Amino acid sequence: MTNDDDTTPSASRTIAPETAVPPVLDLTQDVAALTAAIMDIESVSGNETVLADAVEAALRSLPHLEVTRNGDSVVARTSLGRAERVILAGHLDTVPLPTTPGSRGTVPSSWEGDVLYGRGATDMKGGVAVQLAIAATVPEPVKDVTFIFYDHEEVAAAKSGLGRLVRENRDLLDADFGILLEPTNGTVEGGCNGTIRFEATTRGLAAHSARAWMGENAIHAAAPILSRLAAYEPATVDVDGLDYRESMNAVKIHGGTAGNVIPDACVVEINYRFAPDKTPEQAEAHVRELLTGFDLVRTDSSAGARPGLTAPAAASFVAAVGREPLPKYGWTDVARLGEIGIPAVNFGPGDPLLAHSDNEHVAADAIRACLASLTRWLA
Amino acid sequence: MTNDDDTTPSASRTIAPETAVPPVLDLTQDVAALTAAIMDIESVSGNETVLADAVEAALRSLPHLEVTRNGDSVVARTSLGRAERVILAGHLDTVPLPTTPGSRGTVPSSWEGDVLYGRGATDMKGGVAVQLAIAATVPEPVKDVTFIFYDHEEVAAAKSGLGRLVRENRDLLDADFGILLEPTNGTVEGGCNGTIRFEATTRGLAAHSARAWMGENAIHAAAPILSRLAAYEPATVDVDGLDYRESMNAVKIHGGTAGNVIPDACVVEINYRFAPDKTPEQAEAHVRELLTGFDLVRTDSSAGARPGLTAPAAASFVAAVGREPLPKYGWTDVARLGEIGIPAVNFGPGDPLLAHSDNEHVAADAIRACLASLTRWLA
Repeated sequence: MTNDDDTTPSASRTIAPETAVPPVLDLTQDVAALTAAIMDIESVSGNETVLADAVEAALRSLPHLEVTRNGDSVVARTSLGRAERVILAGHLDTVPLPTTPGSRGTVPSSWEGDVLYGRGATDMKGGVAVQLAIAATVPEPVKDVTFIFYDHEEVAAAKSGLGRLVRENRDLLDADFGILLEPTNGTVEGGCNGTIRFEATTRGLAAHSARAWMGENAIHAAAPILSRLAAYEPATVDVDGLDYRESMNAVKIHGGTAGNVIPDACVVEINYRFAPDKTPEQAEAHVRELLTGFDLVRTDSSAGARPGLTAPAAASFVAAVGREPLPKYGWTDVARLGEIGIPAVNFGPGDPLLAHSDNEHVAADAIRACLASLTRWLA
Repeated sequence: MTNDDDTTPSASRTIAPETAVPPVLDLTQDVAALTAAIMDIESVSGNETVLADAVEAALRSLPHLEVTRNGDSVVARTSLGRAERVILAGHLDTVPLPTTPGSRGTVPSSWEGDVLYGRGATDMKGGVAVQLAIAATVPEPVKDVTFIFYDHEEVAAAKSGLGRLVRENRDLLDADFGILLEPTNGTVEGGCNGTIRFEATTRGLAAHSARAWMGENAIHAAAPILSRLAAYEPATVDVDGLDYRESMNAVKIHGGTAGNVIPDACVVEINYRFAPDKTPEQAEAHVRELLTGFDLVRTDSSAGARPGLTAPAAASFVAAVGREPLPKYGWTDVARLGEIGIPAVNFGPGDPLLAHSDNEHVAADAIRACLASLTRWLA
């Protein structure tokens, strides 16, 4: 689960211990115990090498998989000639360790009863453990499977290991459907809204406020922008059977330089979260229509992703999970898969609201239930 | 001419040379030459002592005046038993010297033809020279005169020498009418508008902008504030025969913390410049009525000053000047005189728009004309 924004903190890099042999991961142990073992290998963004080595070694020991390493990403594929191929993907990195003394969301992990605490408990070591368990325990899945473990998800998009695979190993990524094992509380969350930002700037003419009529007030000129945004009624759009709730908001405003000067500029930053039935270009046209007459500069744009739940593989997966799918609102890497034509959903153990918190934790049974659903679908 | 606001720069203090005897000012020379001599005594706020010493010495040499020194302020009064008493007041300090190399608005002064350049040329050494010339050359004025030369006008109001005189020598300030010799291009500018400021704060509820419906947008909530201000039609109010043009403006706005967060607060700073027919309390009530329903906190307030042009002394003064009086918009020390019940006007040589500039200058004839008007009235 990325920070989804320009507010993404840069990763703090720690130095990996020099190990001739990577830690050995037993992929056949209880999947919750496997999660704990993975969490104990610190893997803050930029420091994924030791974990990637361990994952690669474990997968190479499985004769039914073809394994490719790219940087600190690992791709493993079955080649059974099935009619369909699906992706199970997850990122290896975590956000930086908590700085609050005594925090439990750190490394190594710890148990409290049946609940596992530590950095990555929610985001997303449980999902990675489920991927590895499927790889080891379902050697002849009914669909061909491409397992993707990638680096640098929690930092700037340009560093993304999945993005690098798309650029350098595009052929390894062909699939009919994708599942990203990000935390969703065990519910299928399909696609995601897109996001686009603008700066709307009004201009005036500075003057001393004692002689205001010599100037033009740029803050007053912004009144219609705020009025239109306040009156705007965001749509809810059905896309492939899921209801995507949109929103349009002023997220920042600033104007004026001094208490005795008529302001000559005011800037309103606007964020439109749009359903995945629209391209970013269509979303931009919609905002420009709403704010006709104002100077708008686009500052940011990310396409959404359709859930693709109408595809046969997706439908059978939703049936195997047995719960009503929901739309995903925050931007995730399903959008990156969507861009290369692979419909994808989020499905993983853990509460997404705990991601990145100092209190990250996940129930062992949630991880086991996720594995059971995927096994039911693929075995 | 004060900066009129919280944006007033603090004065840079320079060290006065140690002089056993202050520079001697010849008050009977051409008033423009006297202006240059005064300008050559550097007197940035906080550094007025040498100039105050010179002024005090020159005034003490005039037997018809009773001279009082308070800090770096000097008060000199005639006691002729006239029916009316008028104040001629001016500040001794200047804003700091220009920092631009080669600027002509500095110390010492310089002549370009008949135009005098240097710090204080406009604000307000010409006015001070006129005061001193009247003191020396009109020993038997038709009205009793109180000459006030004061320190620390160009800095925070709490430091004002005039304010200190009001507190410590109130009895010396009794008068029926006051003239502040601030630059007005030789026109009588009467009274001044008052000024009052508020912060209007709207509150919301923060949420991720991908799930905007979990929050409440405080910037959108500010839309009616801006709309009402934009639609507001400021009044022009006749006070004692002068038209005071009011204004009401948002001077600053800020809200929002990040591009992906629904803003939970937005603050609009509002400045109302109100005609001197209103008290600050009435002005406040007017703003609160306009912005009913919003959380307003008053942050600043200064009363205006009526021009008092209906008083007999004022009427005869306006007649002596022979030009149509105008309202003053910016706040000046006439308001301080107004607070203690003395109607006052601004009247002095020089263009007020040049005050504080790196290009301060004044025409010699403007200073001479000012002196001629006052002499005509008082002699």
